[in-house]
Amino acid sequence: MAPKTDIEIARAANKKPIQEIGDKLGIPSDALLPYGHDKAKVGQDFINSLADRPDGKLILVTAINPTPAGEGKTTTTVGLGDGLNAIGRRAAICIREASLGPNFGMKGGAAGGGYAQVVPMEDMNLHFTGDFHAITSAHNLLAAMIDNHIYWGNALEIDIRRVTWRRVLDMNDRALRQITASLGGVANGFPRETGFDITVASEVMAILCLATDLKDLEKRLGDMIVAYRRDKSPVYCRDIGADGAMTVLLKDAMQPNLVQTLENNPAFVHGGPFANIAHGCNSVIATKTALKLADYVVTEAGFGADLGAEKFFDIKCRKAGLSPAAVVLVATVRAMKMNGGVAKADLGAENVDAVKKGCANLGRHIENVQGFGVPVVVAINHFAGDSAAEVQAVKDFVAAQGSEAVLAKHWADGSAGVTELATKVAALADGGSAAFAPLYPDAMSLSEKIETVAKRIYRADGVEMDQKIRAQLKEWEDQGYGALPVCMAKTQYSFSTDPNLRGAPTGFSIPVREVRLSAGAGFVVAICGEIMTMPGLPSAPAAQSIRLNADGEIEGLF
Amino acid sequence: MAPKTDIEIARAANKKPIQEIGDKLGIPSDALLPYGHDKAKVGQDFINSLADRPDGKLILVTAINPTPAGEGKTTTTVGLGDGLNAIGRRAAICIREASLGPNFGMKGGAAGGGYAQVVPMEDMNLHFTGDFHAITSAHNLLAAMIDNHIYWGNALEIDIRRVTWRRVLDMNDRALRQITASLGGVANGFPRETGFDITVASEVMAILCLATDLKDLEKRLGDMIVAYRRDKSPVYCRDIGADGAMTVLLKDAMQPNLVQTLENNPAFVHGGPFANIAHGCNSVIATKTALKLADYVVTEAGFGADLGAEKFFDIKCRKAGLSPAAVVLVATVRAMKMNGGVAKADLGAENVDAVKKGCANLGRHIENVQGFGVPVVVAINHFAGDSAAEVQAVKDFVAAQGSEAVLAKHWADGSAGVTELATKVAALADGGSAAFAPLYPDAMSLSEKIETVAKRIYRADGVEMDQKIRAQLKEWEDQGYGALPVCMAKTQYSFSTDPNLRGAPTGFSIPVREVRLSAGAGFVVAICGEIMTMPGLPSAPAAQSIRLNADGEIEGLF
Repeated sequence: MAPKTDIEIARAANKKPIQEIGDKLGIPSDALLPYGHDKAKVGQDFINSLADRPDGKLILVTAINPTPAGEGKTTTTVGLGDGLNAIGRRAAICIREASLGPNFGMKGGAAGGGYAQVVPMEDMNLHFTGDFHAITSAHNLLAAMIDNHIYWGNALEIDIRRVTWRRVLDMNDRALRQITASLGGVANGFPRETGFDITVASEVMAILCLATDLKDLEKRLGDMIVAYRRDKSPVYCRDIGADGAMTVLLKDAMQPNLVQTLENNPAFVHGGPFANIAHGCNSVIATKTALKLADYVVTEAGFGADLGAEKFFDIKCRKAGLSPAAVVLVATVRAMKMNGGVAKADLGAENVDAVKKGCANLGRHIENVQGFGVPVVVAINHFAGDSAAEVQAVKDFVAAQGSEAVLAKHWADGSAGVTELATKVAALADGGSAAFAPLYPDAMSLSEKIETVAKRIYRADGVEMDQKIRAQLKEWEDQGYGALPVCMAKTQYSFSTDPNLRGAPTGFSIPVREVRLSAGAGFVVAICGEIMTMPGLPSAPAAQSIRLNADGEIEGLF
Repeated sequence: MAPKTDIEIARAANKKPIQEIGDKLGIPSDALLPYGHDKAKVGQDFINSLADRPDGKLILVTAINPTPAGEGKTTTTVGLGDGLNAIGRRAAICIREASLGPNFGMKGGAAGGGYAQVVPMEDMNLHFTGDFHAITSAHNLLAAMIDNHIYWGNALEIDIRRVTWRRVLDMNDRALRQITASLGGVANGFPRETGFDITVASEVMAILCLATDLKDLEKRLGDMIVAYRRDKSPVYCRDIGADGAMTVLLKDAMQPNLVQTLENNPAFVHGGPFANIAHGCNSVIATKTALKLADYVVTEAGFGADLGAEKFFDIKCRKAGLSPAAVVLVATVRAMKMNGGVAKADLGAENVDAVKKGCANLGRHIENVQGFGVPVVVAINHFAGDSAAEVQAVKDFVAAQGSEAVLAKHWADGSAGVTELATKVAALADGGSAAFAPLYPDAMSLSEKIETVAKRIYRADGVEMDQKIRAQLKEWEDQGYGALPVCMAKTQYSFSTDPNLRGAPTGFSIPVREVRLSAGAGFVVAICGEIMTMPGLPSAPAAQSIRLNADGEIEGLF
């Protein structure tokens, strides 16, 4: 019999009513707002009432640089959460929401995989609880109000060539990347060039994920820069008067979503900012709520540790006052082989030498994470074809680095396959050895921050930044934005900006092509490569195969 | 003390948990999918299980031509539902959902008013259960797939000048009315002119409201015409392969929403198509479900009876096989005065003569409704300033027409103010005198159908339709669309196409400027005036005043 697919396993899940999951965390029924019988939001008033409780221990799951072989970061996050519960610890996981649009291009992604999944998987890949729709509405309300302001006399003297606020849709639609709007005559406004990004690229998404409460949300929305005048002075969202209405539109979306793992353990799934032009972590409010309700909170960050963990530490933890207790670095034998130079087609054959060679990538990530003062354990996410010698090679390498690697079989066995990892992680978190500190101080100049990340994390020789970019950074410092952290937008496939440079490359520099100020989210984006903020659909989009079958089940989405 | 505002009354409502409302209709808890504690969707499987049950009695609430004085059609629908329950009948109401976008222009509308409202009012004016967002996604997925098809080689040979499928947003955004898309070079496709409508104007919305189940929904979506080739042959949604994925996106949105009145009686709030280019009624699936679960179902149709009731009968009832048992025609003394020539500023003064004169409008609507074979009672929706003599004048006029007018005080007194009306309506519905028949047979030609509505309902002398439009109608007949009903898009303020011609005008003709085929929804739209499908925001949009106050309450939305 063929092994079950993720969707088959998810559909066979023995889901419990969501209130029973809430009960595990002590969430009373009036504070748990159901969306169907298997999803819920946690009420804002209840969240506010938790302020004085002690926090649980925060555990970050991150990974080596991703390869086409797959690392299973979310799968490990889910498996570890189930594993901690299985060894008697009260644990919750915190992961990101999925974007709707891309599912109609390529087949959608499960939340986890095998026997380490979050359900209801189909809802999570469709509208879920409507958070992304709310972000789309809030974002586009601001856009409409900007053009409306210009239409009715432009009292703010916005330079219509310098409106930076675009529109968004949660859809892969290349035709909207660049448009001319307000055509058709006087009644439709002043024609100007603009375009649409995908919703997850919205600064509103980043803000929703960093705001600590509704008041902070409104302030950050007001702080967003939406346009410039001819004298290049900024026009803020607050000047347009959209911040209040946007907050009203986002009121429900700010409440974290609660679902469950296949083993009926609590999973917060909330927010989903881009991991390149934004910080790529689930919401601060979900993480903080989970920390009040559980003794251990397992969360993840987008991409590999060079981007994901660095932003988690330097943006999310710094700004939200979070102090992670332990890090799990996910690696696979297959990915080690690819980092060691093996092609995807040849991954089936045992190749211990390639594993050893590829471990250089893993080693650098271990060092980097340790540099933040947080203890790290490596999880080897097990694949059926991994040989004992290959696994041992990874273990030996990690041991030589003064750390430890544990084989984890949650994909095949659920929590039963991950008790060793869970035990180690709990011990590490309980051990109190963490002494988290961000990589650089707030007071460092913006260009030095970029250089620090490039040199210390990526191990680049330096940064290439032309005079125009340096002047822009200086100008923002003069305007009071100098204390912000930087958000690096770089390929996830390499420490360098060349996606083909796997392993642990040296002798490269990081070119910064552009910098952007996300004044509401609170970071300066340094763009070091091509960044696509509105994807397109492939020639045979998945949508053409998606439909309800005769039993009312969704086909073609996975 | 000042009388309470609608929002104050709504916020003070003693809402019951939505399952208790479901219990009143015998909806089991596993079939009631909660959205928070006060909203729910009724599950599709449960709906399917009701097929063999007998239907309750269907009562339509319609109105005279609207005036700025306000008629209170929704308020009367809600009040009558509460009144029927108060006299011991098991009744439910069915109304439309509100559109999100316009609330950020002008202050949002309550669902009803005074002590005849549906709650939760704020949610209903914001995201509610996400139905409109789902429609937006489904509509725009098709749009993205059309441009994507063209981008990847245009195997269907679509003429890019003749793509009729636009995009939608639930937002008042005039800047998007007319755009040039796919700018920016080869990677973004072939530049072409297009634009956005507001979501409620989408044919997907009309289809959602007319489809009987998910299979019918998918078929209708597939039937939609999205573009034409150079030889003018149509390209269908089905050719693009979007119908299946759109159905998946609309799967939850197709399930009717259940909320409650202030008196805790069941209210289905589902769908909201335009009342001009579409038929302006709540969904067929909600109405049919309510008829299976309640003995009396009170529903309403958009605009005045010349548009709303006519489309309700000739489109919704004809196509869904519904047979209304009674009609309530809402009139107010103030609106009678305005129809009799009084200006809005002078409405405070008693003016029996003007009331008598304005009754001509009411009289024609009574005749029209009776022409469909359905018995009618007039509800005089009471305003505090109405004089006894004015009310009596309306009653006398209606009596002289062989019908009856009843004073209704639900706005001030809830169900206690409407028991007389409820008793009359129940007796009328139970009396079995209805013998519903649509105005024209399917087999009549499209141009004759338009002429029939214009002459028989509007009392026009005739229709002005140029040769090009007649040829277009003929072409559709040749293509097999001749049996469709017509959907008139005309001003709601007059029987004629001149909004200033109040009362019961004669001696006019109806100019048809354009015809459109909604092949999926299943009607031919005859446009007899200016139709705005993407509103703009005013110079001081309501959004600027909308915000959460210190107590977390929404200010400025109402």
